[in-house]
Amino acid sequence: MTAQIIDGKMISAEVNRENAENVALLKSKNITPGLAVILVGDNPASQVYVRAKVKKCEELEITSFHHVLDKDATMDELLALIERLNKDENVHGILVQSPPPPQIDEQKVIESIVPEKDVDCFHAVNVGKMLLGRTDGFFPCTPYGVMILLEKSGIETAGKHVVVIGRSNIVGKPMTALMLQKNPHANATVTCVHSMTKNLPELVRQADIVVAAIGKPEFVTADMIKEGAVVIDVGINRVPDASSPKGYKLVGDVKYDEVAQKASKITPVPGGVGPMTIAVLMQNTIKSCMMQHNLL
Amino acid sequence: MTAQIIDGKMISAEVNRENAENVALLKSKNITPGLAVILVGDNPASQVYVRAKVKKCEELEITSFHHVLDKDATMDELLALIERLNKDENVHGILVQSPPPPQIDEQKVIESIVPEKDVDCFHAVNVGKMLLGRTDGFFPCTPYGVMILLEKSGIETAGKHVVVIGRSNIVGKPMTALMLQKNPHANATVTCVHSMTKNLPELVRQADIVVAAIGKPEFVTADMIKEGAVVIDVGINRVPDASSPKGYKLVGDVKYDEVAQKASKITPVPGGVGPMTIAVLMQNTIKSCMMQHNLL
Repeated sequence: MTAQIIDGKMISAEVNRENAENVALLKSKNITPGLAVILVGDNPASQVYVRAKVKKCEELEITSFHHVLDKDATMDELLALIERLNKDENVHGILVQSPPPPQIDEQKVIESIVPEKDVDCFHAVNVGKMLLGRTDGFFPCTPYGVMILLEKSGIETAGKHVVVIGRSNIVGKPMTALMLQKNPHANATVTCVHSMTKNLPELVRQADIVVAAIGKPEFVTADMIKEGAVVIDVGINRVPDASSPKGYKLVGDVKYDEVAQKASKITPVPGGVGPMTIAVLMQNTIKSCMMQHNLL
Repeated sequence: MTAQIIDGKMISAEVNRENAENVALLKSKNITPGLAVILVGDNPASQVYVRAKVKKCEELEITSFHHVLDKDATMDELLALIERLNKDENVHGILVQSPPPPQIDEQKVIESIVPEKDVDCFHAVNVGKMLLGRTDGFFPCTPYGVMILLEKSGIETAGKHVVVIGRSNIVGKPMTALMLQKNPHANATVTCVHSMTKNLPELVRQADIVVAAIGKPEFVTADMIKEGAVVIDVGINRVPDASSPKGYKLVGDVKYDEVAQKASKITPVPGGVGPMTIAVLMQNTIKSCMMQHNLL
């Protein structure tokens, strides 16, 4: 058996069509959603991510406010900029591309963004709302992207055993929280395994759905996968590749070729979870705009 | 084998000795921690809980501000009281005994308490901090009571498989979150099972540590328990008992007599998790007082 590919490009395009419809609806009321993207420094990978976000805003006719601060920018400068964006009625979402340079206290920065514009769902109040099952905040882009990917692929999670590999604040923990919720598109039995787990392969082998978010290239091998399981690969790792002009290639946390022989459905890297993350970011920005105009 | 009893009365007394030391330390600086307990209506079970909290405050020389509102009290009255307590410098913790009467919107009430005095850890911002692994908020009383119970009983959680039964906002979800954290007294592999779980007994049987918080009397039976597992019973259920003068008895979510033959350690009901909950409430009130005086 070879697994069916879960096409994140196609499904994110569907989400973005819905996003475009919502933008059009807002424009018909003379409202334009706006997203402020702040990059501190010149990290090349961060530049790539920021460009992708700005480009998607343009495609969807969301106004993007792209701010680049010098790599030596101080906390005060950054906080002053955020303060201004917090008050700007044309800005509905604010994000600071991670990771910032070392002089920047990322937690302080996140907490300085008003929760109503925290479209990344990094602020404690939005994280808390998510765990409590409340829908008046935002859901974090990558794990919620996985939820949508599953739903739009017709993959039931209710009553299924989901094993989340990794416990980061960005993916593993919120993924666990979203899957647990009392909600027809969640309702999963969830196990979260991580670096301290003793019998990891044995536990992952029980999963109907595996979400790999451990940040280790090709960590999940075929022997860890139950025949017919669904495998979602959140990892994006650069590994050296002499045959590539860039000198590296991108691989996920899953050993794709062998796992694809055993899984029933699998996400590729790239083209799986990645595009969903940006689609949810856009969705959150539109949601924020609607909430700020009392349209939700 | 008969399980060793995890004595919540004894361990909570130990926590309360630490609490008393911290109160003495504060008093030496002319500071007295204060806890406001609000009861709306005359629910008999709520009255019992409130009395127990007020009594523990007295024992520890924490000032208790006990407010009883009529069962027909309006939201406005309650919010006005909370507003006053939010500003009162002698009040470091505020809680509204659950469940309130139907005219009271509990979520709105919780969100009206300033997070700095939310010693129950019900406010979204404190729930979020907990999931993110931050220690500058509060931990919720019952699940954190379980963490302390395990730690003080010398039961390691790191690398152990903990199965949490139940996914309530009060116990199941925060219990899962606390157990997952990167922290020598957590670091567990966690599975959360609940009403939608298909193969619940099979999953619970894998647990090194079971935390039962499903709210069903004697739900967990011996056949669900691995020989030698640790069993923590969070449930408190009233079941009819003709032989008791009250006409009922309290039982947990665990069928104690048979499970105690298979577990290595087990908490009784009552006298297990219950007393820990109040001890953590006191601990949180003292922590809040210390934070408000910049002593932490």
